[in-house]
Amino acid sequence: MNAEIIAVGSELLTPARIDTNSLWLTAKLNGLGVEVIRKTVVGDERNLLAEAAAAALNRAPLLLITGGLGPTEDDVTREAVAQALKRRLLFSEEILKGIEERFRRLGRKMAPNNRRQAFLVEGAMPLPNPHGTAPGQWLDLPGGMIVLLPGPPRELEPMFENHCLPLLRERLPQAFIRTRFFRVAGMGESDLDNRIAPIYKPYGNPVTTILAAEGDVQIHLRARGATEQEAEALAEELGAKILAELGDSVYSTDGTPLEAVVGRAVLARGETVAVAESCTAGLLAARLTEAPGASGWFAGGFVVYGETMKTKLLGLDEALVKQHGVVSEAVAVAMAESARDRTGATYALSITGEAGPEVSTPGMEPGTVWIGLAAPSEASARLYRFPTGRERVRRYAVQTALHLLWRKLKAS
Amino acid sequence: MNAEIIAVGSELLTPARIDTNSLWLTAKLNGLGVEVIRKTVVGDERNLLAEAAAAALNRAPLLLITGGLGPTEDDVTREAVAQALKRRLLFSEEILKGIEERFRRLGRKMAPNNRRQAFLVEGAMPLPNPHGTAPGQWLDLPGGMIVLLPGPPRELEPMFENHCLPLLRERLPQAFIRTRFFRVAGMGESDLDNRIAPIYKPYGNPVTTILAAEGDVQIHLRARGATEQEAEALAEELGAKILAELGDSVYSTDGTPLEAVVGRAVLARGETVAVAESCTAGLLAARLTEAPGASGWFAGGFVVYGETMKTKLLGLDEALVKQHGVVSEAVAVAMAESARDRTGATYALSITGEAGPEVSTPGMEPGTVWIGLAAPSEASARLYRFPTGRERVRRYAVQTALHLLWRKLKAS
Repeated sequence: MNAEIIAVGSELLTPARIDTNSLWLTAKLNGLGVEVIRKTVVGDERNLLAEAAAAALNRAPLLLITGGLGPTEDDVTREAVAQALKRRLLFSEEILKGIEERFRRLGRKMAPNNRRQAFLVEGAMPLPNPHGTAPGQWLDLPGGMIVLLPGPPRELEPMFENHCLPLLRERLPQAFIRTRFFRVAGMGESDLDNRIAPIYKPYGNPVTTILAAEGDVQIHLRARGATEQEAEALAEELGAKILAELGDSVYSTDGTPLEAVVGRAVLARGETVAVAESCTAGLLAARLTEAPGASGWFAGGFVVYGETMKTKLLGLDEALVKQHGVVSEAVAVAMAESARDRTGATYALSITGEAGPEVSTPGMEPGTVWIGLAAPSEASARLYRFPTGRERVRRYAVQTALHLLWRKLKAS
Repeated sequence: MNAEIIAVGSELLTPARIDTNSLWLTAKLNGLGVEVIRKTVVGDERNLLAEAAAAALNRAPLLLITGGLGPTEDDVTREAVAQALKRRLLFSEEILKGIEERFRRLGRKMAPNNRRQAFLVEGAMPLPNPHGTAPGQWLDLPGGMIVLLPGPPRELEPMFENHCLPLLRERLPQAFIRTRFFRVAGMGESDLDNRIAPIYKPYGNPVTTILAAEGDVQIHLRARGATEQEAEALAEELGAKILAELGDSVYSTDGTPLEAVVGRAVLARGETVAVAESCTAGLLAARLTEAPGASGWFAGGFVVYGETMKTKLLGLDEALVKQHGVVSEAVAVAMAESARDRTGATYALSITGEAGPEVSTPGMEPGTVWIGLAAPSEASARLYRFPTGRERVRRYAVQTALHLLWRKLKAS
């Protein structure tokens, strides 16, 4: 089944606020096998909301509307939905009593405005709201459903859990969802898609989504089945084919990020990692320590931003730096070796490159980065050219360095 | 003028991802006097997107569509807009050449898929994309405009700034907007609001917005006037009152982030900065070097994550560390002093604390952080307790360290 979500509120159309209720609701709906096909944010305008609600119902049999159930003139959801359905609003003495009771309990006087919250769209079932004054509303329509929910998450979430989920379950055909989530490094989004599109395209179910961030690509599979077994079998079938195609490029099948995968592997071997960073200036160390417990395997390192720091803090040979330049294979290797020596770590990663926009070495392109790795047996470095943009180059370099170490760990 | 924004991408209809481009775009549009009346998120489905685009154009004369310009079959924005407008897609040899050239520069082979990105909706003007392969597209229609923008913020933002803003300004009725943008450190959002609400509340124009991130609060004022002078006078009047109230807490009145304000001040004095980081493990160094040109004033530093590294890399006295514990005033001061000595920098900042969730010192609360500062005349450290959450503690600590150095620079 398909659903749409409309978030109501002029504040959600400003640069300062964003609708996050829909994320929470989407997770709950997906868990029932319901797909969200559109999300809309509209302001506190009755006509615009009525039009949006009517259009949504033409596309999807389930419509959730959040917000706009408050007591003020700006709260137009009740009126707008009545208008969209060409129904009346009916006053409920019972709901009014509940609201008055709530105010009494809190020792406050009910404002006359709150009477507005006692109106129900004709045919609607009220949904109790123990955390606020506005009841939700549930409407069964020929061929569809509308649910009106309050905007504040602390009111919306328990109302949905306790009152909507049971009603939805009664009305939905049984459907089971099973997912797979792979993370891939060392490959761009379109290279990855070129490789796996022939595998996943023939499948309408599972649904395959590819997401990319700097140097990190994620593959999501979501399989539906009439039984748990059917959904699992579909997810497994496509997942196994994709894994077979991608092999070593998949570094995680449970969502664990690369730094944690690396850390887990290093820790399991009782080893440690150190770093020496020039252009990334601490980003790699910060990334390695994002995971709690990093102190078990991460030693520390050096931020050697300027040329002199490379000799001063790491003891690199001044003549070597002068001869090869700071962005060079020789300096990357020497940085890694020195960081390994000085910290006593098992492995050391080094990064030296031109993040841009200015370059320190005349003629060198921004995005040129050498990444070094010193291991017990050997030290070496590789040259990369990352897409430009200062922060992007730095993040690509960090991701690539992690991937380099991960492949080393897998190989040995 | 009214605008609508459509964000395209099935991943934006999952519980894991949210459209944030629309917040950035809304701020830019508001700055031109354009109001956003609806935001829509649709999946990678050509027919649904075509329908959404056509409906949006019926409501608002300006439609921005973000995302869906990539090279894969899933990227349907070009096709959908052509369908909505009943226009053809035309292949552009010139755009293809640009894409091929980009791949050559990066030393990579263009995938055949990328040809898809060289199609323009009939009548569209391409918008250059120096940060990615997909050009944007600008369409002037009878009574309206459609702008197609790439999804990744690093591509969308410069494209909008450099190519859309000028075109929009030409097409919009003259309305004069003047803004003020203050950045504040060392104060929470509600403390700030309590102090300045009595000042800005009486003003409907300028509009005042307060935005908060970890340890950094921003105040935006937007004044509208029938003339430039009128708008400027309003912005100046309220801006001056707020500045007078906040004094030293305002570190930037032109949007410059704190690390760049610090860097500018250090550079102007011909001085340098170094760091020694424990729980932040490189984040402070990475932040200081976010600004291009940081090599002129940032020396480098030490990531001393474990206890042994504090003695090994910084030469701290083992007995001192044992006696006071790694999260202590004495260790913070010693870290800063040693980093200053070993790098030869004018100033050194140190951070040692418990980011959590586990703590290394039994009984110490996560969020406890000592920040040290060694200057030519003296070295000292201050104790902070930040709100919990590992990454939050680390970012608060970095922001606070920067603020500490900034106040030192202002005072001397």
